[in-house]
Amino acid sequence: MLGSVNEPSNWRDLVVALDDRHLDALASAAAATIESLRGSPDAPRSAVPPTTLRDLVRAVAVCPDDGSDLTTVLAEFATTVWRHGVVPSDVACVAHLHPPTLVPAVATELAIAATNQSMDSWDQAPAATELELHLMGWLADLIGFGPSASGVMTSGGTASNLLGVTLARSAAAAQSGVDVAQSGLPAEAAGWRILTSDQAHFSIQRAAAQLGLGRDAVVAIASSPSGSLDVAALDETIERLTRDGARVIALVATAGTTDLGAIDPLGEVAARARRLGCWFHVDAAVAGAFLLSDTLGGRLTGIEFADSVTIDFHKLWWQPFNASALVVRDASQFDLLRVPSDYLDRGDELEGVVNLVGRSLDTSRRFDAAKVVVTLRTLGRRALAEMLEHLVDLAAHAASAIDNEPTLSLLATPTAMMCVFDAPDASADDLREVQQRLLARGEMVLGRTRIKGRAALKFTFMNPLATAADVERLVRVVVDELGAVRAS
Amino acid sequence: MLGSVNEPSNWRDLVVALDDRHLDALASAAAATIESLRGSPDAPRSAVPPTTLRDLVRAVAVCPDDGSDLTTVLAEFATTVWRHGVVPSDVACVAHLHPPTLVPAVATELAIAATNQSMDSWDQAPAATELELHLMGWLADLIGFGPSASGVMTSGGTASNLLGVTLARSAAAAQSGVDVAQSGLPAEAAGWRILTSDQAHFSIQRAAAQLGLGRDAVVAIASSPSGSLDVAALDETIERLTRDGARVIALVATAGTTDLGAIDPLGEVAARARRLGCWFHVDAAVAGAFLLSDTLGGRLTGIEFADSVTIDFHKLWWQPFNASALVVRDASQFDLLRVPSDYLDRGDELEGVVNLVGRSLDTSRRFDAAKVVVTLRTLGRRALAEMLEHLVDLAAHAASAIDNEPTLSLLATPTAMMCVFDAPDASADDLREVQQRLLARGEMVLGRTRIKGRAALKFTFMNPLATAADVERLVRVVVDELGAVRAS
Repeated sequence: MLGSVNEPSNWRDLVVALDDRHLDALASAAAATIESLRGSPDAPRSAVPPTTLRDLVRAVAVCPDDGSDLTTVLAEFATTVWRHGVVPSDVACVAHLHPPTLVPAVATELAIAATNQSMDSWDQAPAATELELHLMGWLADLIGFGPSASGVMTSGGTASNLLGVTLARSAAAAQSGVDVAQSGLPAEAAGWRILTSDQAHFSIQRAAAQLGLGRDAVVAIASSPSGSLDVAALDETIERLTRDGARVIALVATAGTTDLGAIDPLGEVAARARRLGCWFHVDAAVAGAFLLSDTLGGRLTGIEFADSVTIDFHKLWWQPFNASALVVRDASQFDLLRVPSDYLDRGDELEGVVNLVGRSLDTSRRFDAAKVVVTLRTLGRRALAEMLEHLVDLAAHAASAIDNEPTLSLLATPTAMMCVFDAPDASADDLREVQQRLLARGEMVLGRTRIKGRAALKFTFMNPLATAADVERLVRVVVDELGAVRAS
Repeated sequence: MLGSVNEPSNWRDLVVALDDRHLDALASAAAATIESLRGSPDAPRSAVPPTTLRDLVRAVAVCPDDGSDLTTVLAEFATTVWRHGVVPSDVACVAHLHPPTLVPAVATELAIAATNQSMDSWDQAPAATELELHLMGWLADLIGFGPSASGVMTSGGTASNLLGVTLARSAAAAQSGVDVAQSGLPAEAAGWRILTSDQAHFSIQRAAAQLGLGRDAVVAIASSPSGSLDVAALDETIERLTRDGARVIALVATAGTTDLGAIDPLGEVAARARRLGCWFHVDAAVAGAFLLSDTLGGRLTGIEFADSVTIDFHKLWWQPFNASALVVRDASQFDLLRVPSDYLDRGDELEGVVNLVGRSLDTSRRFDAAKVVVTLRTLGRRALAEMLEHLVDLAAHAASAIDNEPTLSLLATPTAMMCVFDAPDASADDLREVQQRLLARGEMVLGRTRIKGRAALKFTFMNPLATAADVERLVRVVVDELGAVRAS
């Protein structure tokens, strides 16, 4: 008989199988897990200092010889781990592109883990392979790509950008008659350049580092005060690099920069890429979701000319980490990645079989597409659009509240869900102190960054449950804390 | 008031928050999700052909304008997706290193997704950062590393191997005075070589491809009939390469090869790496779990001399995808990866704060460490060791059953949980036909590979609920199917 979660464990009862007996055990465990989350303090994080928290966590014996019942383990986790997390559903958790999640997605994580499909080969994930392909096809349509488009799920925007830049590198090498995956970078690669704005995410530089090109291969193009790429500066740089004998292998545009939410002029960048005959990647990790909204979607015009697009479902689609996608205009580009394998991707399978390992930088990979599709079907497009539009409104509301505060100064008019500001008479240290004190006391998880070299504070509104009144309160708290810092 | 899962959704009710009201909604959704998994056929997969399955899945409308209640969506998923998966808890699912999962881990996925910590920065994951570090410290101890060791969780063995080889590349470049991440591969990199056995996982080649070295930079060393690296062949290759002016930047040993489960002579490879002054990476994705067992752990002697080690929790630790780790002997090696960021990793935070983005190739990253620790504490080391030992016994039992079958021929004595065989009078096409027919009819998900160029079938026993009688039945089914294929 299956033990309850309160009895000492017998491992035979703890293997997840799909018969009723084992699913009953899983249902009990799932209920107990949710119970262990109750009683969280009503704050964005606990006020325990980092070093105390370290001691608390390190007191947990990771792997004792003998197990304990799950209820005991979860009770310990409640007080040592869950209770000392950051709470993205708290309205004062506004530092990062770090969203609360949605019930259908979180519940589906159970099914993903219980069925444990592995996306690398069809014989580990038959329906899952088809659903991921179906989701990718829908996403390609949303972007405006044609019927040759498809994509693959990845672990995050950084991985999606890496995959996009990897394809750009392969395509550039192929133009020179080189199979870079086989024979490595040719000598001429020392002159290869990737152009992107100075507001692009650092994952573009990291991709260049990974690929052996080095961060120096990424040339930063100046951006406007609102954070979008300056096309005149792009043209000047292209002209200079061409004159110097360098080769531009990719233009990378951003749709939704991390700090300002800016969207580069995609159509204009696309035209330059076409002229250069180089790859055009759009990092739409942040603003890709705008495509769901009738009012916001138009801002991404030109994205349909991209060769590859990064979309992060774990940002403004409120999916739990990890869920990202790299969508390509021409799915045959994935062939540049493919490594046939004797045990996994043999090419002699049943008719209709697709092994997704052929388009991924991963091998084993979880079935994250399931949670995305269950979410999209449960909420529907209109609700998701409404949530997005609400967050854009909140950022605008924060901007006017900041404008009305003489001790604060707005650094850019928000175009997305971020709002960056500083204080006219405050030093960078003062701003740091405000952010650190609020974090230390567990009152607010506030963003801190630099905008064009200038220290700044940042709100990133990811929680659609937040209201205009919440936003006003957050501004008030910052004003008061700044006053306290300056008085101390 | 919160809607039930049977009412049309209001998105405000579907945001996961940690108050009782929202947790009640999550509990209902979790229960409904588990209900949707009931009624799975008692088979390793449904018999629906790939093209029919494609049509079935493509009939799902991915994102209608208006949502539906979760119960309706899950009912549709049950018939289109869950019902047509592969069932890793079925005893006839024996193709890949594709495990069934454990109740504590699957249940913890709910908490991971509901709390949605992001492992890139402390202010998105305070306790989670500490728990991951604590788990990595425990794992480092298990490997036999000293106090300078630590690690980071990754999305899989392929990612862990990529990270290990990335560190090797950085260390080699640093020895030449080059910051490869900044300035790219130097010209001398054309002569850099990575040595690993011809049985190593293809992710080593993929890592070299990613890093700009190319698959050609990976030199395959001959292996013994049992699949472990031949040290004499390694010595000859090192001598030849050195004579030719190439530079060995890394030796990569495997602890648990994909097809044979072979463990390379780790201590002997370590001695060569030390002599060469190069990086020593051990891919212990498969056999790393043996360290939990008093009887199996000794096979990994020498792993403690590695510079980096890959351990996959989503293989023989029965974690849901994804959960892997890269553990390094000297955590300061991660400094070679670090990219300071204005918004994320500033270096001027509260005392004791660690931002794990500094040691990862990812940015946003899920809190997979939680499920691993909850599992280890619930089952305990002894139970996990017993499960492992049982699987090794099953493979040995399969080997003797195959030995007793005149129509089958064992290709290697199993040392882990795999068992490879062929049939004396059967062609590669016959073997393919056996595997494909069993898959098409949904009777068995059998492995198929090549061993030293020779077509083979493979059992990979990952399910600790399987018995000796199950194994005998699987051998019988293969014998009968082979007979039918040869008669047709």
